[in-house]
Amino acid sequence: MKTLFRQVALIGKYNAVAGGAAAASSRAALDDIARYLAAEGCQVFIEHDTASTSGITGYPVLDVPGIGAQCDLGLVIGGDGTMLGIGRQLARFGVPLIGINQGRLGFITDIPLDGYRQVLGPMLQGEHEEDRRALMEACVMREGQCVFRALAMNDVVVNRGATSGMVELRVEIDGRFVANQRADGLIVATPTGSTAYALSAGGPLLHPANPAVVLVPIAPHTLSNRPIVLPDDGEIAIELVAGRDASANFDMQSLASLLHGDRVLVRRSEHQARFLHPRGWTYFDTLRKKLHWYEGGS
Amino acid sequence: MKTLFRQVALIGKYNAVAGGAAAASSRAALDDIARYLAAEGCQVFIEHDTASTSGITGYPVLDVPGIGAQCDLGLVIGGDGTMLGIGRQLARFGVPLIGINQGRLGFITDIPLDGYRQVLGPMLQGEHEEDRRALMEACVMREGQCVFRALAMNDVVVNRGATSGMVELRVEIDGRFVANQRADGLIVATPTGSTAYALSAGGPLLHPANPAVVLVPIAPHTLSNRPIVLPDDGEIAIELVAGRDASANFDMQSLASLLHGDRVLVRRSEHQARFLHPRGWTYFDTLRKKLHWYEGGS
Amino acid sequence: MKTLFRQVALIGKYNAVAGGAAAASSRAALDDIARYLAAEGCQVFIEHDTASTSGITGYPVLDVPGIGAQCDLGLVIGGDGTMLGIGRQLARFGVPLIGINQGRLGFITDIPLDGYRQVLGPMLQGEHEEDRRALMEACVMREGQCVFRALAMNDVVVNRGATSGMVELRVEIDGRFVANQRADGLIVATPTGSTAYALSAGGPLLHPANPAVVLVPIAPHTLSNRPIVLPDDGEIAIELVAGRDASANFDMQSLASLLHGDRVLVRRSEHQARFLHPRGWTYFDTLRKKLHWYEGGS
Amino acid sequence: MKTLFRQVALIGKYNAVAGGAAAASSRAALDDIARYLAAEGCQVFIEHDTASTSGITGYPVLDVPGIGAQCDLGLVIGGDGTMLGIGRQLARFGVPLIGINQGRLGFITDIPLDGYRQVLGPMLQGEHEEDRRALMEACVMREGQCVFRALAMNDVVVNRGATSGMVELRVEIDGRFVANQRADGLIVATPTGSTAYALSAGGPLLHPANPAVVLVPIAPHTLSNRPIVLPDDGEIAIELVAGRDASANFDMQSLASLLHGDRVLVRRSEHQARFLHPRGWTYFDTLRKKLHWYEGGS
Repeated sequence: MKTLFRQVALIGKYNAVAGGAAAASSRAALDDIARYLAAEGCQVFIEHDTASTSGITGYPVLDVPGIGAQCDLGLVIGGDGTMLGIGRQLARFGVPLIGINQGRLGFITDIPLDGYRQVLGPMLQGEHEEDRRALMEACVMREGQCVFRALAMNDVVVNRGATSGMVELRVEIDGRFVANQRADGLIVATPTGSTAYALSAGGPLLHPANPAVVLVPIAPHTLSNRPIVLPDDGEIAIELVAGRDASANFDMQSLASLLHGDRVLVRRSEHQARFLHPRGWTYFDTLRKKLHWYEGGS
Repeated sequence: MKTLFRQVALIGKYNAVAGGAAAASSRAALDDIARYLAAEGCQVFIEHDTASTSGITGYPVLDVPGIGAQCDLGLVIGGDGTMLGIGRQLARFGVPLIGINQGRLGFITDIPLDGYRQVLGPMLQGEHEEDRRALMEACVMREGQCVFRALAMNDVVVNRGATSGMVELRVEIDGRFVANQRADGLIVATPTGSTAYALSAGGPLLHPANPAVVLVPIAPHTLSNRPIVLPDDGEIAIELVAGRDASANFDMQSLASLLHGDRVLVRRSEHQARFLHPRGWTYFDTLRKKLHWYEGGS
Repeated sequence: MKTLFRQVALIGKYNAVAGGAAAASSRAALDDIARYLAAEGCQVFIEHDTASTSGITGYPVLDVPGIGAQCDLGLVIGGDGTMLGIGRQLARFGVPLIGINQGRLGFITDIPLDGYRQVLGPMLQGEHEEDRRALMEACVMREGQCVFRALAMNDVVVNRGATSGMVELRVEIDGRFVANQRADGLIVATPTGSTAYALSAGGPLLHPANPAVVLVPIAPHTLSNRPIVLPDDGEIAIELVAGRDASANFDMQSLASLLHGDRVLVRRSEHQARFLHPRGWTYFDTLRKKLHWYEGGS
Repeated sequence: MKTLFRQVALIGKYNAVAGGAAAASSRAALDDIARYLAAEGCQVFIEHDTASTSGITGYPVLDVPGIGAQCDLGLVIGGDGTMLGIGRQLARFGVPLIGINQGRLGFITDIPLDGYRQVLGPMLQGEHEEDRRALMEACVMREGQCVFRALAMNDVVVNRGATSGMVELRVEIDGRFVANQRADGLIVATPTGSTAYALSAGGPLLHPANPAVVLVPIAPHTLSNRPIVLPDDGEIAIELVAGRDASANFDMQSLASLLHGDRVLVRRSEHQARFLHPRGWTYFDTLRKKLHWYEGGS
């Protein structure tokens, strides 16, 4: 039986701070998966950085826009961070992604490297569940100009400098005043991000099918400043009113320093990331396992 | 200029546990408002229980279905509880409601009795904001039969008996297993209910424009059992697995005792309550005032 | 080498709701431990209820006051609930307890049944850590009379009826007004109880060496009603101001119905429970394991 | 009748970031209070920085050690921050402090400037309540040396750099391993600090009579990493295991950058700050007012 996906890109630890050692250890895994895909009838490409850090050869190399243009599937070997990083870049091309995880399973990378073939085989033939994830686009406005622009799949975080007290942030939704937040910072999280930093800061879980974001204050001065869930079709504006050395972080991957009066605008991106999971996957199974929820019976 | 609303029903403290005294004190307010409405060109009706507890006379009396059939506006004099009680009953008729509050302003009853005319005048002529609120319908299934059915505008709460330890509740969403919750109980709250009991139990605020509900465990045994926001187009099933004297509450107004194996099913109602607010009203202004959020500047 | 403890009482699942089956399954364990203790030179006694539910014979039987009078060690085979139940009764006699656990280890029962001999041997010869736990004594005052009296090792809980809304509780410490709490209820927890219900309700952990209790409101209406830690040398008074069917629970073992105006008084007991742990035991190791804290290194 | 306190130091906004404007506005207040004290028979001194920023003249000027050596009372005109700053420095001299507040009353500065004479008069004659507050002393150990030393009355905070992800902190109490915390940071708060940053981060309130501190993680990765209350007679060690640009803050007044392997040691200071309040003052009244707790009756 033939695979549904003909052009498949292999993507390794993409955003590797860990660098060489980690990449080297996964060379064998990349080789093995590449051969498996070729045997299944796929044309295999290697993502450019993956090729150079792993040293894998024998397959054509593509950069991310090239993958977007030519591939109909991306196979990611890494953790949630890698998956989010590449997912953010591929979202505008609509290329779906499958995540194979070498370590502990993640929220979105749920195929263990050991024995991946049993799981991947049926998926390549269409036996999969699609899991679309919203992205946010953010820009930092200064004197009427957008001075910084970024996409975020997890969160946009405005926070205080490390050595200063709290920031004061004026929050507006669709031009309507919400409140001034005095806190360590404020997180705007997608459903995907609701299981990450926002959860640590006291936010709720948002099922990915919610067309919503959640605003979660970090250590708010006013105890009634509770997390608030908003429809994602509006515009959130966060203005820095007071506080030194504040910055805006986007998926903790890119960063803008903020001046007083700067406004961080956040809205839903028109693109979505597409993740594929094995047939029968449910979001709740993942939550339950990752968060060690009780299953009854003991 | 003519009022938009020709047939207006006056509704007093509806669900008055307080009873006679409270009702008597509002007789003067009802009289005054009725005369005002008549002067504005409305035909005024008095809700049946309101008429009998207040003793107001001189206007035709209607029961709730009568109001649903004949009126194009309900004017509620009371607090949020009264508004929710009558709103739940009128939702299926699509009659909008305006809330006049004798005491502290509520989340949805936001016109103070003192000086109501200035606010109400423009509203009667169409200068208002409409605020639609979702309802949930719930039924208790026992051996395949629905043995209890109720509507809820705030919340469905399954909780333990007062003198017993925690309940264990098996939760499924659209037939998919989520987890077994061991807790004092579990709240399913609408956006409207997210500012009520669910907030006390640690839940987030949900803007009413979210087509969502939130599941909030009460004092959960497993610390990672955090509130979870779900799209409201699915079916939530809560099965009583263990625990004595458990019950299901609907807006803390009606109540069903539960047996082991009973399943409480919750889904969105096809009806919505319609509340009218003065022009310029925003949900965020209400939240900010009720929760004493900081406005900056001091 | 001789054991430090000459008269040892064996105590099985004491407060067994589970009843016969559970007791039967532990008969073998009791027999084995009794023989082991006798071989170590101890005189072995069996607690009265343990003897009758397990059917074990061949050893003298003592009731709890008898154990208090004649034994210098109690060996408990069960979980934390059993240990707390018997610990509460033996506190006034000063008899130390060791807990052997048949299932998952508990916060205070930390010797696994499998291989208990290796751990127990050195402990019997004095190689142990002593862990003293404070108790509270509570009484319910009605019209100047104490109408109910109880000891609690975990918590005193005043809570609403299952089918009614919140209670209102007036709280005073040493005669000084603190606040009126409107909530599902209020927990007064010892350090021992701080890992139980109080933790689920949002309370902090209290190291057992703190001479303190913590007041934890359950789902408080006022969001700033946060847990408060108090020295345990004062008197806490909780008066039922409003709410139907309220009750006071003591370790979820005994229960008093409350009337409006009833006052629950809580103060530190003059007695303490004494638990023995293997040499090297630390409270933090137990917390870390039970709460799955991160240990670093992965 | 004679005042108990003969040598009284006047201390204005001490740590004034606001600078000149704020100081100028309080010149009149300082003058007025100085004259009042002189009329009551006190010898009045002005704290050195207070004299130079306010321009007040006609009274002898003392630096803080001079106040410690010569005065038997300090009168602080400012907010809680000013009071904590000067209280930290005067603790080793045992000089008590009274706080007069120009703005909103604080947790420890509770005499309003308007009408201070009625309150202050009796206090000067001994009609006061003494409120002792513990201090912590901290040092940063690097390669066996203490490279930074500070006192803290509120909190010691170890936190991540603003632009980096979480820190990993190894926590030990009296040499016993507690856990590795992965979080934005970790707060060690005194009872005094429990109403400040620690409260925003989710910590409990600690009555000042507790000989205790509380460890509060900020946005912890592990959801069961709950605040933990510890006796204050031990030593807390916090080692920076991972994370960039981390720092340790002491009352948000002084700051040390941290390297991997640095250990922040925290223990109780041998000194205590002494605050005086009007007769009848209770800690609970202050809490209730500052946190807007419900008092019943409405």
